[in-house]
Amino acid sequence: MSKKIRLGILGGGGDSLIGVLHRIASSMYDSYQLVGGVFNPIPEENTGFAEKIGIPTNRVYNDFDTMIEEELKLPEDQRMQVVSVLTPNFLHFPMAKKLIESGFNVICEKPMTTSFEEAQILKETLDKSDVLFAVTYTYTGYPMVRQMKEMIASGVIGKIQKVDVQYYQGWINPIIHDAEKRANTWRLDPEKGGISCCIGDIGTHGYDMIEYLTGLEVESILSDLNYMYSDNKMDIDGTVLLRFSEHVKGLLRTSQIATGEENNFTVSIYGEKGGLKWEQENPNYLYHLTEDGPLKVLKPGHGYNSEFSLDGTKLPPGHPEGIFDSMGNIYKGVAKAIRKEEYHPGEFPTMNDGFRGMNFIERVVESHQKGNVWVKL
Amino acid sequence: MSKKIRLGILGGGGDSLIGVLHRIASSMYDSYQLVGGVFNPIPEENTGFAEKIGIPTNRVYNDFDTMIEEELKLPEDQRMQVVSVLTPNFLHFPMAKKLIESGFNVICEKPMTTSFEEAQILKETLDKSDVLFAVTYTYTGYPMVRQMKEMIASGVIGKIQKVDVQYYQGWINPIIHDAEKRANTWRLDPEKGGISCCIGDIGTHGYDMIEYLTGLEVESILSDLNYMYSDNKMDIDGTVLLRFSEHVKGLLRTSQIATGEENNFTVSIYGEKGGLKWEQENPNYLYHLTEDGPLKVLKPGHGYNSEFSLDGTKLPPGHPEGIFDSMGNIYKGVAKAIRKEEYHPGEFPTMNDGFRGMNFIERVVESHQKGNVWVKL
Amino acid sequence: MSKKIRLGILGGGGDSLIGVLHRIASSMYDSYQLVGGVFNPIPEENTGFAEKIGIPTNRVYNDFDTMIEEELKLPEDQRMQVVSVLTPNFLHFPMAKKLIESGFNVICEKPMTTSFEEAQILKETLDKSDVLFAVTYTYTGYPMVRQMKEMIASGVIGKIQKVDVQYYQGWINPIIHDAEKRANTWRLDPEKGGISCCIGDIGTHGYDMIEYLTGLEVESILSDLNYMYSDNKMDIDGTVLLRFSEHVKGLLRTSQIATGEENNFTVSIYGEKGGLKWEQENPNYLYHLTEDGPLKVLKPGHGYNSEFSLDGTKLPPGHPEGIFDSMGNIYKGVAKAIRKEEYHPGEFPTMNDGFRGMNFIERVVESHQKGNVWVKL
Amino acid sequence: MSKKIRLGILGGGGDSLIGVLHRIASSMYDSYQLVGGVFNPIPEENTGFAEKIGIPTNRVYNDFDTMIEEELKLPEDQRMQVVSVLTPNFLHFPMAKKLIESGFNVICEKPMTTSFEEAQILKETLDKSDVLFAVTYTYTGYPMVRQMKEMIASGVIGKIQKVDVQYYQGWINPIIHDAEKRANTWRLDPEKGGISCCIGDIGTHGYDMIEYLTGLEVESILSDLNYMYSDNKMDIDGTVLLRFSEHVKGLLRTSQIATGEENNFTVSIYGEKGGLKWEQENPNYLYHLTEDGPLKVLKPGHGYNSEFSLDGTKLPPGHPEGIFDSMGNIYKGVAKAIRKEEYHPGEFPTMNDGFRGMNFIERVVESHQKGNVWVKL
Repeated sequence: MSKKIRLGILGGGGDSLIGVLHRIASSMYDSYQLVGGVFNPIPEENTGFAEKIGIPTNRVYNDFDTMIEEELKLPEDQRMQVVSVLTPNFLHFPMAKKLIESGFNVICEKPMTTSFEEAQILKETLDKSDVLFAVTYTYTGYPMVRQMKEMIASGVIGKIQKVDVQYYQGWINPIIHDAEKRANTWRLDPEKGGISCCIGDIGTHGYDMIEYLTGLEVESILSDLNYMYSDNKMDIDGTVLLRFSEHVKGLLRTSQIATGEENNFTVSIYGEKGGLKWEQENPNYLYHLTEDGPLKVLKPGHGYNSEFSLDGTKLPPGHPEGIFDSMGNIYKGVAKAIRKEEYHPGEFPTMNDGFRGMNFIERVVESHQKGNVWVKL
Repeated sequence: MSKKIRLGILGGGGDSLIGVLHRIASSMYDSYQLVGGVFNPIPEENTGFAEKIGIPTNRVYNDFDTMIEEELKLPEDQRMQVVSVLTPNFLHFPMAKKLIESGFNVICEKPMTTSFEEAQILKETLDKSDVLFAVTYTYTGYPMVRQMKEMIASGVIGKIQKVDVQYYQGWINPIIHDAEKRANTWRLDPEKGGISCCIGDIGTHGYDMIEYLTGLEVESILSDLNYMYSDNKMDIDGTVLLRFSEHVKGLLRTSQIATGEENNFTVSIYGEKGGLKWEQENPNYLYHLTEDGPLKVLKPGHGYNSEFSLDGTKLPPGHPEGIFDSMGNIYKGVAKAIRKEEYHPGEFPTMNDGFRGMNFIERVVESHQKGNVWVKL
Repeated sequence: MSKKIRLGILGGGGDSLIGVLHRIASSMYDSYQLVGGVFNPIPEENTGFAEKIGIPTNRVYNDFDTMIEEELKLPEDQRMQVVSVLTPNFLHFPMAKKLIESGFNVICEKPMTTSFEEAQILKETLDKSDVLFAVTYTYTGYPMVRQMKEMIASGVIGKIQKVDVQYYQGWINPIIHDAEKRANTWRLDPEKGGISCCIGDIGTHGYDMIEYLTGLEVESILSDLNYMYSDNKMDIDGTVLLRFSEHVKGLLRTSQIATGEENNFTVSIYGEKGGLKWEQENPNYLYHLTEDGPLKVLKPGHGYNSEFSLDGTKLPPGHPEGIFDSMGNIYKGVAKAIRKEEYHPGEFPTMNDGFRGMNFIERVVESHQKGNVWVKL
Repeated sequence: MSKKIRLGILGGGGDSLIGVLHRIASSMYDSYQLVGGVFNPIPEENTGFAEKIGIPTNRVYNDFDTMIEEELKLPEDQRMQVVSVLTPNFLHFPMAKKLIESGFNVICEKPMTTSFEEAQILKETLDKSDVLFAVTYTYTGYPMVRQMKEMIASGVIGKIQKVDVQYYQGWINPIIHDAEKRANTWRLDPEKGGISCCIGDIGTHGYDMIEYLTGLEVESILSDLNYMYSDNKMDIDGTVLLRFSEHVKGLLRTSQIATGEENNFTVSIYGEKGGLKWEQENPNYLYHLTEDGPLKVLKPGHGYNSEFSLDGTKLPPGHPEGIFDSMGNIYKGVAKAIRKEEYHPGEFPTMNDGFRGMNFIERVVESHQKGNVWVKL
């Protein structure tokens, strides 16, 4: 009876915050119904979790392979239409690959894979299929990010001449200075987290945002990473010089040792006619700098915003929405795409974002290891 | 199978924003399942809406009375456990009254009733029942509002000596200056909106917040309202002087003609040892002023916050949550109460808040009409 | 040889902060030369101070009367051209009066007198003279205050419909709660400070600013003051409801028990077309709210500001100027007037400001003492 | 009679803003008396300017050499005690050198010289003399910069682990895109402005601030500059990676094409225990980030600040001071030094700051020209 999209979820059980984020985001526009999945590798915890969140357990499977097998047995109009992959990073690739091959639409948490090689394979797999694939670079769903993208596209600030993006956190500070802790944190273990900690975790958000907002592609990069201790194997801080073309430059600054910072992700883009600035921790303000007029501060929900931005706001101006609402907008876009409704190309990040992001991580590490030299993307 | 609380909703169909707010809020903590209700008085729109939001139509009723009748026929473990009343203001009272009398828990939008007399009757009705009754003063659900309440209760700023609350909007400005528009806006029609526009709509939020945060009760008030045009029947701006006791005073400032303001609700509370300030449009910052130290800025999710505040935050610091999350916290509290779990007394506003609020509105109008004189609450 | 204006100063010796403020302000535009005065009633401290600040002692007089007498003996082109009165409040009146009668231009600190009666006499004295009289309501000299005044005058926000001014400080908090301290603070002693503490000291700034900015005159007021302790004789907190006309209202909120506040003087003015907001502690930002466009933030020194505003800024945008610069602008205006150069009518506050201010203080106290009733100004 | 320090000024005539800044700064603490100088190379404008600013013309000389000659003829207790050099950049070196050699104390605008070679010669000249030499890196005089320096020195944020300094302006944007303008702007002409525009003009402020605040010395740098057009000879934007030691890194970001930015100079310093942030455009706020407590916002004039910081504030908290006051503090420090009074080592920047700054500029350009490689300072 329900016209809701049938959603499955992999991972996100127990106290998983990412699970909470995806469940709420999926419920925001009355578009999805969570019908099952594998929330936890331990069977009893798996069903226990399903009961806790109040969903029927008949489609809560013991493992991923069983889920695929059983779901494929169901008639198409009962089968899961899209599956969200929230498992540990190293499982993203095999799960996403099999989901695509089995004909399921996929919403994949970032990082999409643990290596660029995997990303290439996944991209090829998707290219041969006709399913939909979204990567959850959550921050692109904010209304004022969308507004910024549209203003840049429509030429409000003119030709872009400088980009400066910051993503500063301080959470790793107490870990990094403790020899034992830094040896035992999974984030700092290349076996578990891939080749990069800081760039892989937050740098990719910055890189994706830059290309998302500007429509430009970074041509080459020069990076300087910091590992802080000789026995530490993963970067925890890094600056990346960016070149879009000979005379258009930028930089991406990331850190997990900016002690006291929470999730200080900021974007500044300057063009020939003006500048635009946005801060993730105050996401409902977009600053428009002009050469000869006052600073303008745009806020969500006003008629002066683009349709695309307005589509991402649920309440009138002055009723602050946040990161759940941002992720909700990404789910909303995916829903439109699944339902073959019209949608904006920037409504959710795709394979291309995930793919380029994985390349970025590897090239940044390469530049650093070669002695801070320019590397083409 | 599901352990979700069975929720019914009255009103909130069509493009209703309040409907969106309640549906999302109810889904935030995996605690509620919307099972039916009456969303719209027009039957086809009613079921159409149910289909649009993807819920089964078997418990979507043509009218309120039928809903009560049919639900009561269901076994108790299938019957709606709580009903949210989101209908036009004048329907709150009769619906809430019958729901209580029929043994349903109630979540009621504000204003709870259209007169203090109704509020008194409703209160008596509730007193004779054993159901749960919540009024959605949404803003009390913000984590930093909760933190502020707890800090005041624990004496951080000492004995309160001054309270200043502002609620400024500008939305009525283009209406009020147009004779035709102001004659035809339901908000300005006492038949439809009760005796007060500005105080009734936003002043009560401010008044409730003051008593919520401080634990004090306002003893008497003196008000000065503004109607702007002689043919306008409802206040659109008003200042209320507050007395808590002979030497403890405060003020509540409200306006709908503060042109350009969105939803600028701010709270400043000063005690003998310090001050606390909060702004609804930037809800994730709590300012703690002290006499001899630097200003402190508290943010949600940090370990220095109270348990009650932390219970209202879903993600780590730096991931901004907003008004949906605030309302979600109120629904979460109601869920705990329905499930007989332990909960904090400030987790959701109750009949007492609604009751006092209705009295406040009438006394404020009385003070103004008598020539701006002191009136006891 | 020097074309500087010959300035005398009364008071401001020792560690006086107001003395520092006036000396620096007078030197800012190369317009004044401090030639002498009476800085201190104790002769040796008086000359010692002159030496300390590096001015010749030949025109540093033992007392006020001697100064007048001796200066009048000097040829007109050597005589002091203007005298700044920075003495304790009760001396403002007799000194200013005699200065006027003796033909000296006067720059008088606020409060101009200690009673409205004195103010009336002083006004009459001035009316019969041809000297210049300025009162230093320092805050009117800020470039963004001037810009606000000009924008309002030119109709940018349309007809004014609401005014809300706040002046909150917390400095008296530790004094007021200590019986001994509050009995022995001169500010709380009516013999020394006049009939009002809070309204007299900071309320008048707010009142003057309102009339300065809007060009409107307050018609009547209703006040509620707080004395906090029965043995305390002076108001330390007060709210004043303002009426400009039947449908144009406002309020002035003042406090010295807003614990933790420094000098939080803010102005919000709303008109039919928009709003303007300014905060003294961040004086280089002027917020312009509009109904259908983004918030605009104006800053000093930009070409979009009025000539009057630009005349008050010495450096390009981004080089913050402060309160010394604000007072410097007032001195600059007085210099223009003394030199018979063209100047803007808002360049410095005049007798009229001082006069109305004294009336305001007395009417506010009257309204409170009569039981919070409306009083005409 | 006067104990004021006898000050001479070179340059700063006409509409010179830097002249206004120095004259006001010198007058702020009653310590200096401007006795003469050479304000303008054109004799009639020179004396005309002296008359305009109201100083006697007897010591206003036609040229620099005459000034030195004539002043040396005066008895020591009448001779200028210190000379401020505000002339065009290329004159700083020859004038400062001769002043030092002739026994005059010098206050020199930045850049101290136009090349590192000149800086080395000047340093040697000074080393052989016993005069005092100050360079006016104006921003180091702000009270909250001083407070930051002291907090870092006292270990409040622990061992420094990351430094990020930004200096963004947009003023050159309209010039750079116009072929004719960029060919004819003196700032972009290496003959007149030295080898660097952006780094030379504002980058040195950032570099000096970093070493001033942290007490660390930058060991090596890697830079990426932007010239934007092939026919443009000077950098107008540049990022500099900084290494203090193997594991302590930082970056300095500068731009004159950050369209719409005014003078956006910000400093962020993170240590093992916390972070400190400051912004020049809002200079009265110092942000102290900690790992487990609320953000603290320090403001000038409070007792919790260091003595050194408090010495730079003239009024109580809440009375904003600005850039004139900051420069005034530098002059105050120089006055103490001239009078052989005790002073704080950070009270004014010295030859060492100027000297290191010139080296920095040349090494940054070198790094860029060699292909963005590491260069030792």
